[in-house]
Amino acid sequence: MKLRLSEEELCNHRDAVRKKLEEKGLDALCLFSPRDIFYLTGLYLIQTERPVGLLYDGTNTTAFVPTLEVEHVEKLGGVHEIISYEEYPGEKHPMEILAETIEDRSIAKLGVDSDGYPGAYGYEGPSLSEFLGDGNVEELPRMIEGIMQVKTDEEVELIKESCRWGNLAHRYLQDYTEPGKAENEISTMASLDASRSMLKTVGDDYYSPKGATTPATAGFRGQIGKGSAIPHALTTNETIDEGDVLVTGASAKVGGYVSELERTMIVGEPWKKQVQFFESMVKAGEVAMEAIEPGASFADVDRKVRAFYKKNDLMDYWRHHTGHSIGFAGHEAPYLDRGDDRKLEPGMVVTVEPGIYVPDFAGFRHSDTVLVTEGGSERLTYYPRDLESLVIPSR
Amino acid sequence: MKLRLSEEELCNHRDAVRKKLEEKGLDALCLFSPRDIFYLTGLYLIQTERPVGLLYDGTNTTAFVPTLEVEHVEKLGGVHEIISYEEYPGEKHPMEILAETIEDRSIAKLGVDSDGYPGAYGYEGPSLSEFLGDGNVEELPRMIEGIMQVKTDEEVELIKESCRWGNLAHRYLQDYTEPGKAENEISTMASLDASRSMLKTVGDDYYSPKGATTPATAGFRGQIGKGSAIPHALTTNETIDEGDVLVTGASAKVGGYVSELERTMIVGEPWKKQVQFFESMVKAGEVAMEAIEPGASFADVDRKVRAFYKKNDLMDYWRHHTGHSIGFAGHEAPYLDRGDDRKLEPGMVVTVEPGIYVPDFAGFRHSDTVLVTEGGSERLTYYPRDLESLVIPSR
Repeated sequence: MKLRLSEEELCNHRDAVRKKLEEKGLDALCLFSPRDIFYLTGLYLIQTERPVGLLYDGTNTTAFVPTLEVEHVEKLGGVHEIISYEEYPGEKHPMEILAETIEDRSIAKLGVDSDGYPGAYGYEGPSLSEFLGDGNVEELPRMIEGIMQVKTDEEVELIKESCRWGNLAHRYLQDYTEPGKAENEISTMASLDASRSMLKTVGDDYYSPKGATTPATAGFRGQIGKGSAIPHALTTNETIDEGDVLVTGASAKVGGYVSELERTMIVGEPWKKQVQFFESMVKAGEVAMEAIEPGASFADVDRKVRAFYKKNDLMDYWRHHTGHSIGFAGHEAPYLDRGDDRKLEPGMVVTVEPGIYVPDFAGFRHSDTVLVTEGGSERLTYYPRDLESLVIPSR
Repeated sequence: MKLRLSEEELCNHRDAVRKKLEEKGLDALCLFSPRDIFYLTGLYLIQTERPVGLLYDGTNTTAFVPTLEVEHVEKLGGVHEIISYEEYPGEKHPMEILAETIEDRSIAKLGVDSDGYPGAYGYEGPSLSEFLGDGNVEELPRMIEGIMQVKTDEEVELIKESCRWGNLAHRYLQDYTEPGKAENEISTMASLDASRSMLKTVGDDYYSPKGATTPATAGFRGQIGKGSAIPHALTTNETIDEGDVLVTGASAKVGGYVSELERTMIVGEPWKKQVQFFESMVKAGEVAMEAIEPGASFADVDRKVRAFYKKNDLMDYWRHHTGHSIGFAGHEAPYLDRGDDRKLEPGMVVTVEPGIYVPDFAGFRHSDTVLVTEGGSERLTYYPRDLESLVIPSR
C-alpha cells in the first residue's frame, strides 16, 4: 500500500467540493489554508510570508505560488496548472496578481476559505474582495473542514499506519526510560530509532507532504514528576527520577495524517496514591469509550465523563474536556466537550484523553485515537493501558 | 548571563507599549499573538483551539487562559493576574467571558492586535467588537511588530547565543556527513549532540519559552543532490552520495530568540561547474553585506544583489529575494526585497542569503544572520563560508 491518498480518492474529494460549489452557485473556489489545498490536491504548500493558494473551478486546479516554489510543485504534481508571482512583497502585490488571474478567467462568483491570504511571519496584504468587489466573494472558512470531519477508508488506513509507528516510537521511549537519564536523550533516540525502522520497513512507499526529519516521534511533553500535573508543560532538560510520574506523547506522520498516543508511566514501584489516580483515569477513559457511538453528541460523551469525575470526587483534578477530533491536524473540530452539540458519525476519529491533575503531586492521562464505527467505537492505538505494563523498573 | 530577557528589559518593552497606548488615546490593549504576549511578559502562551490572550492597561498585565493553563502560567510568572475560562467551546464562549472582563474594568477604548482570537485547529468564535461595539475596538495588528523590528542589546545577545549553538550543531552536521549515510540520522545526531553540549554548558541558565526537545538543530531541509536546486524541498529519507551539493540549515532556540545559519557543502572533490556557482553565490552575499548600512532601504540591498545577478548572467538561477528580518520568529518583516522600502536601522537583524538554483543540477545558498550596526553590518553567524572548509571528504 502506498502511504498516501490515491488519485481516485483525491478525485472524490474534488467531486465533493464541486457539488458544494454547485449548491452555492459559485464559479470557483480560492483556498489559502494548507489543509484545504492538501485535501483537494494531496499537495502541501508551506505558509510563509509568501502567499500560496489554490484555485478550483470544479474541473481544474491551479496552484498560486512564488517563483521559489514552482519547480517544487512541478515535481510534486497534484495540480493541473501553476501560476506564479516573482516574490513577496515584490513590486506588485501577489494578491493583485491573483485577483487579475481570477478576473481573466471570468470568475464572477468566487468562494474563498479566507478573504485574501491570512498571512504568516509579518505578511501584509489586501483582501481579494478589495479587487473583486464585496458582492463577488463569499467566505466559506469551514467548508473543507466540514467535509474532512468524516474520514474516508483511505484516511483511516493512513491514521492506522500512523498509530503503528507511533506505537513503536512509544515502545522505544519506554525501553530507553530509566532513572538518571535526560528526557531529550530518551525521546530523541526513541524518535530516531522508530523513524529508522519505519523508513526501512515501508521504504519508498513512505510519504510525508509536510516533510519530517524524524517522522515517528515520542517524548514527554515536559510532563515529568511534579510537572506531570501541568497538562501543557514545556521543558527541555529534565532528568528522570525514581518515583516520577511521566505523561508521554507519541505519533507518526504518514501521508499527511497523524494519530495521538499518550500514556502515563510510573518510575519504580507505584505508590498507593499513584495507583488510585491512575486507575481512576483509566476508568474515565472507559466511560468515554462506552459513550462513543453514532448519533450521540460530542457533548454527551463529555457530560458522561464529567459525571464520572463528580461521582468520584475528582472535579478538583479536572483540567480539560475529554478529547478532540484528529486526522490531518493534531487537533481538529468537533471537540468532545459539553459545549459541542455536533453529532458523532461513523468514520469520525477522535482522541479519548480524560486526565487527572493533582497539583504538586502528579498528572495522569492516557490518550487513544478512536474511530467511531457503525456499532460504537474502536481504539486505533493499541499500546498497553494497564499500570503493570507501564511501570519503569528501578535501577 | 541568564539566557532570557531580564525583568528590566520586559519593563522597557511595556513602557514602549504604554507610550503607544497614550499616543493613541487607548485605555488598554488586548493581545492574542503569542509573539506580542511574549514581548510584554516573557511568557509564551501556546495557541490551540483554546483561546489565549493578554490584557495590558499600561500598568498591569492579565493573562486570559483556559483552566488547563492556569497552574502553568502561575509557575512561569510574568503576569500580574490570571483570568481563566473553563474550556473551549464550553457552555459559554471564551470571547464572551473575555469581553465581560473588559467591560467590568470600564475599559472604553481598547486596542487589539486582532479583533478576537484569530484561532487555530478548528476554533470558531465571535470578534470582540461584537460584544464591545465597533467604535470601541481599534485594530493595531502591527504595533508590537513595529517595536520589535529594532532589537535591543539583550535581544541581540540572545540571538548571538543562538548563533553559537547553531554553529556547534552545524559543526556536528558537517562532521557526521559522509557518503552512504541517511540524512535523518546525521541531522538527528548532530541536533542531539549539540543540544546536549549546550544544555550541559549553560545549565540552568537555559530557557526556551516555547519548549524544545533538541533546542539546537541542524539539517538538510531536503536540499540534497539535485534536490538542492529546490529552495523549499521537503524530504525525510535521502542518502548522501558522492558529488552531492547539500544546502544545510542550523539554529538554536535561546530565550525565545533564534538565528539562521545555512551553508552549501559539497561531497567529494568539487567539479568546476559547482565551484563557479558556489563562488558566485558567495560573491552575491558579499554584495549584500556591503550594501547593508543604516539609512539604506531594504529594497536598495536587494536591488544591488539583483544587479549582480544580471551582470553575471545569473537571473535564470534567481529564485528569491536577498533575505528577511529574524529574531523572535524565523522570518520577520521587513524583507530584503526590492518591493520593501522600509529603511535599515542599527539594531535590526536580517538574514543575508542570496541563492543560485540550477535546475536538475544543484542549488547554492549560504545564509548568515547579520546585525545592522552604526557603521554598517556585522555577521553574527561565524561558520566558515569558503569552499575549502565546506567540502566533505570522499570515503
